[in-house]
Amino acid sequence: MAAVIPAPRPGDQIAPLPSPGPDIQPLVIQDLVERYELGKSRYGTGLKTFNGRSGLVDLYQELADALMYVRQVIEEDKAMLVDAEVEYRSVMTVELVQSAASDASVVSAARVSTQGDQSRLADRDFATGSPEARLIAFLMRNRHGTPFEHTSMTFFVQAPIFVFRELMRHRIASYNEESGRYRQLRPIFYVPERTRPLQQIGKAGHYTFTAGTASQTALVDAATRRTARLTYAAYEQQLAEGVAREVARMVLPVNIYSSAYVTMNARALMNFLSLRVHREDSAFPSFPQREIELVAEAMEGHWKDLMPITHAAFEANRRVAP
Amino acid sequence: MAAVIPAPRPGDQIAPLPSPGPDIQPLVIQDLVERYELGKSRYGTGLKTFNGRSGLVDLYQELADALMYVRQVIEEDKAMLVDAEVEYRSVMTVELVQSAASDASVVSAARVSTQGDQSRLADRDFATGSPEARLIAFLMRNRHGTPFEHTSMTFFVQAPIFVFRELMRHRIASYNEESGRYRQLRPIFYVPERTRPLQQIGKAGHYTFTAGTASQTALVDAATRRTARLTYAAYEQQLAEGVAREVARMVLPVNIYSSAYVTMNARALMNFLSLRVHREDSAFPSFPQREIELVAEAMEGHWKDLMPITHAAFEANRRVAP
Amino acid sequence: MAAVIPAPRPGDQIAPLPSPGPDIQPLVIQDLVERYELGKSRYGTGLKTFNGRSGLVDLYQELADALMYVRQVIEEDKAMLVDAEVEYRSVMTVELVQSAASDASVVSAARVSTQGDQSRLADRDFATGSPEARLIAFLMRNRHGTPFEHTSMTFFVQAPIFVFRELMRHRIASYNEESGRYRQLRPIFYVPERTRPLQQIGKAGHYTFTAGTASQTALVDAATRRTARLTYAAYEQQLAEGVAREVARMVLPVNIYSSAYVTMNARALMNFLSLRVHREDSAFPSFPQREIELVAEAMEGHWKDLMPITHAAFEANRRVAP
Amino acid sequence: MAAVIPAPRPGDQIAPLPSPGPDIQPLVIQDLVERYELGKSRYGTGLKTFNGRSGLVDLYQELADALMYVRQVIEEDKAMLVDAEVEYRSVMTVELVQSAASDASVVSAARVSTQGDQSRLADRDFATGSPEARLIAFLMRNRHGTPFEHTSMTFFVQAPIFVFRELMRHRIASYNEESGRYRQLRPIFYVPERTRPLQQIGKAGHYTFTAGTASQTALVDAATRRTARLTYAAYEQQLAEGVAREVARMVLPVNIYSSAYVTMNARALMNFLSLRVHREDSAFPSFPQREIELVAEAMEGHWKDLMPITHAAFEANRRVAP
Repeated sequence: MAAVIPAPRPGDQIAPLPSPGPDIQPLVIQDLVERYELGKSRYGTGLKTFNGRSGLVDLYQELADALMYVRQVIEEDKAMLVDAEVEYRSVMTVELVQSAASDASVVSAARVSTQGDQSRLADRDFATGSPEARLIAFLMRNRHGTPFEHTSMTFFVQAPIFVFRELMRHRIASYNEESGRYRQLRPIFYVPERTRPLQQIGKAGHYTFTAGTASQTALVDAATRRTARLTYAAYEQQLAEGVAREVARMVLPVNIYSSAYVTMNARALMNFLSLRVHREDSAFPSFPQREIELVAEAMEGHWKDLMPITHAAFEANRRVAP
Repeated sequence: MAAVIPAPRPGDQIAPLPSPGPDIQPLVIQDLVERYELGKSRYGTGLKTFNGRSGLVDLYQELADALMYVRQVIEEDKAMLVDAEVEYRSVMTVELVQSAASDASVVSAARVSTQGDQSRLADRDFATGSPEARLIAFLMRNRHGTPFEHTSMTFFVQAPIFVFRELMRHRIASYNEESGRYRQLRPIFYVPERTRPLQQIGKAGHYTFTAGTASQTALVDAATRRTARLTYAAYEQQLAEGVAREVARMVLPVNIYSSAYVTMNARALMNFLSLRVHREDSAFPSFPQREIELVAEAMEGHWKDLMPITHAAFEANRRVAP
Repeated sequence: MAAVIPAPRPGDQIAPLPSPGPDIQPLVIQDLVERYELGKSRYGTGLKTFNGRSGLVDLYQELADALMYVRQVIEEDKAMLVDAEVEYRSVMTVELVQSAASDASVVSAARVSTQGDQSRLADRDFATGSPEARLIAFLMRNRHGTPFEHTSMTFFVQAPIFVFRELMRHRIASYNEESGRYRQLRPIFYVPERTRPLQQIGKAGHYTFTAGTASQTALVDAATRRTARLTYAAYEQQLAEGVAREVARMVLPVNIYSSAYVTMNARALMNFLSLRVHREDSAFPSFPQREIELVAEAMEGHWKDLMPITHAAFEANRRVAP
Repeated sequence: MAAVIPAPRPGDQIAPLPSPGPDIQPLVIQDLVERYELGKSRYGTGLKTFNGRSGLVDLYQELADALMYVRQVIEEDKAMLVDAEVEYRSVMTVELVQSAASDASVVSAARVSTQGDQSRLADRDFATGSPEARLIAFLMRNRHGTPFEHTSMTFFVQAPIFVFRELMRHRIASYNEESGRYRQLRPIFYVPERTRPLQQIGKAGHYTFTAGTASQTALVDAATRRTARLTYAAYEQQLAEGVAREVARMVLPVNIYSSAYVTMNARALMNFLSLRVHREDSAFPSFPQREIELVAEAMEGHWKDLMPITHAAFEANRRVAP
């Protein structure tokens, strides 16, 4: 139908998109050839003119039935489609909600070992090269970790489930997350930026990534969007039918967004950053998935603002967590 | 095509399943009515006989095009379908891989507070009512938890991702899990038993569940199976195109199976059981999702075999973890 | 010498203190009797007049020697005595150094499960009976503990070592303590208030305490003070001789004061309070040593000021930590 | 008295020991000089012959009184002395009570990420250079720590309190310790070997130790033994008087022995060893007190027997805990 109509009008479909898929016509031709052979083997003959049946009536009945099948498929697809509600995101959101964290608290805690009740320090900034900055550098270098623990940062993170899966492997932190048992999850899905490297090079433990081909990029984009729509439709359909949220959510993919409060102290955060930010110059380079690295980088930004001297010492120490 | 053929033959489709969906025919009839109106408003007239065009040629061209569209849709669906490889499971697997756990180790550790180096006890069974059993009951009742920590159990667990999501919120345990970054995940998906309760009654924090209706049960079964096939096909398609596993897996739903080694001590396990097994008679009834409860019940079975007196004390204490 | 001099003058000792010890005179008399017998058995005779020796010369030599022995003992005692420097304390000091803790942070974290990114709440007070207060009470009652973790309190604690020994058994906290390896410990020692109950009644696990007798109170006071002086003198003597601090400190008793920064979140604190504050009305009464209870009570006071609604819910829930 | 008697007989004291203390005689002479001056200033004259008083009666009364004072001091000392019961030790005892730990469990847990349910490995030894040994080396080098956690070792440790103080700062372990509240602590005290280095060189964070002088060695030995006797006597005296154990124990020094069960997994143990064993060739040299190092070395010996390949990898990786 669409081909003969020059410009889209109300009720028409959009123009076709480029696709990595095969051309259809040769496949149909091949099918017709095979179907011709099947017919001959089944009926002993091909379809002949003047075979005693009204081709027109057969055709009419076939088409009437066919129309029903077409509508069935459309209905089924519709049952799987949700439109305006689905949102795609390529970013991770990390907000600093609350904190009690400063370079001064590190210095106080460290000095208690030698100064006891004379160690308490008013909260203030330290100059690079000051005795306090040198003490922090010393603690970092020699892996005296406990003085960095008397700090706390609470982040509000929005990210896909597969990122939270990795995040929650870090046990020295507190988590409260949006629940698929207690609320309907919103139709927000992660779709990678088109610049996100897609090809994994090398062997396990030493992977590097390079840019995807145009075809790969298009496929990833299409696949994540399509499965997002299809699965969210299946989710909504179950909810509409009265199925419990905790059951209906089983069909949702791991790129659906969730949100959580995450609380860590600076020592736990440094451990997290050493494992979840890739830096060539780090003493123990790690190879995090890019998406959790985005979360880690955002956390690091907030932390650096709160504890600049500690952050500088972490960098100087080649990102080895104390 | 299908309607005129009395019994299925090679190449035919299976017989239709019962479905909660609408009848198709009235929808088609409604479409034809609307399309008739659209045609009249677009062209000023309905389709008339002897309108100066060859209906047969129009028809032939339309059908030839239509055939192409049908094949396009079939191709797209195929690209989304994976068949023999997909496996459905309704069970959680929990194997005890390794352990160092006995009632005697609890008694030894508890007695060190009063007996010091005379506290060491050979590993052996205790009778109900023995001084050792009474000591364990005392520790449990008064929440002296540390003596239960000198034990270790390593389980190998196979369960869907949404279950591991809940499991890994328990921080006092060790986990190593199959990785979607380092291997292609196998096409094994969780589908609830048809007896799995599907309707949630009551408000947040006080949910109870009742059996699903026939229609709900059919829908959940169909939805989980269909999304399993569709998403796994999208996953395989991306992998075949050379997309990195860590990207391709984003489309997989949370009911795909994963596997992991999980190591806990008896105190951590009791805490886990108190939260993840529902028992009316427990002091603090919890309302776990049925699927993680299956994992918890299997762990409890292994633990009960290793430490029967401790397990009995846990029960007698209304499942309050010490 | 002292007895014949009516009023103390420079160089004189202080008046005698009441003591639970025995009278000395009968002991001396008994000694003299025994010594008389020993002499007779050794020399075949008692000491006789006109025995051929000059009693005066014997006496003079004995006294000259005796004087040396007296001085030896005095020197040895002096080597064990430190005076003006020793300080006795009966209190525990707990200062709130830094915090990020409010009832609002609990509510936000709890609501994320049902409200996702709509859960963020400005920091503010809640009225008793408000929806927020009822939510906190619900979380507490049903032991949903994680929302209480997004909080942090740093305390500076001064207490004797035996109290820190108990405190540091709580692993969900951060500690930095004054170090006997890196500094000379100050001569501050814990001496119980005279009202501190001293007698333990009942059997293990069910102890109660009652007031000490006058004699017990005097003895405890004398013993803790005397060992404080003696051990600190031995400590200083070793330091003066150039012995390393980490070796010299081995002689110090566990009632010497130390100081530390202690950081906990509200959930960990509630667990600590449930174990280290005795309350008849608590669901699981605990029997902490009075001295750590003093620390716990002081922490509880600070916490109650920061999170009054959470504290009230903890109390209403019979102090069961969530 | 002692000086005139040639050989010890029953009732006599032992021969004098060498001592770093001062000679007594010059001190007495100096006292007599000062006392002479004090007498002159008080009475306007020195003690003269024929001064109207019977020197003999004065002397007799003084001596009778003096005898009482001597006996008082002896009684006080006796109250502070405990003899046969006090035991001195210079060793730390570490027994392996129970374990579930093997190189195979590391390999299984690591392979689950790539092999899922095919990862289970029978417990067996690996040759150096085998694929399994190389995998363990890879995990160690790249700080993939979790596979080392599916192991458990329970040690029974006997060591002085100051060692347990350091040990229990390691939070990723389970502890049950002998209790001074629930039992009378036994009179076993740590006294350093005479070869134990006693002098601390350098500044905080970079200390090294060298051998003590003869005088330091004698002093440390005498001081630790004497305070052990004195404080244990004060402890026993209070207990005898009915004072509660938890109060009486306050006078005990930190070199009294305690005992505890300590359970760790291999990852936690490696972290502990990296901090508590000094090795010049370790990537982050630490400077533990010798006494906890003795405990750590003993634990390392047990662990090496259980997991030789993992231990070798830890060494090869310069003792950086993964």
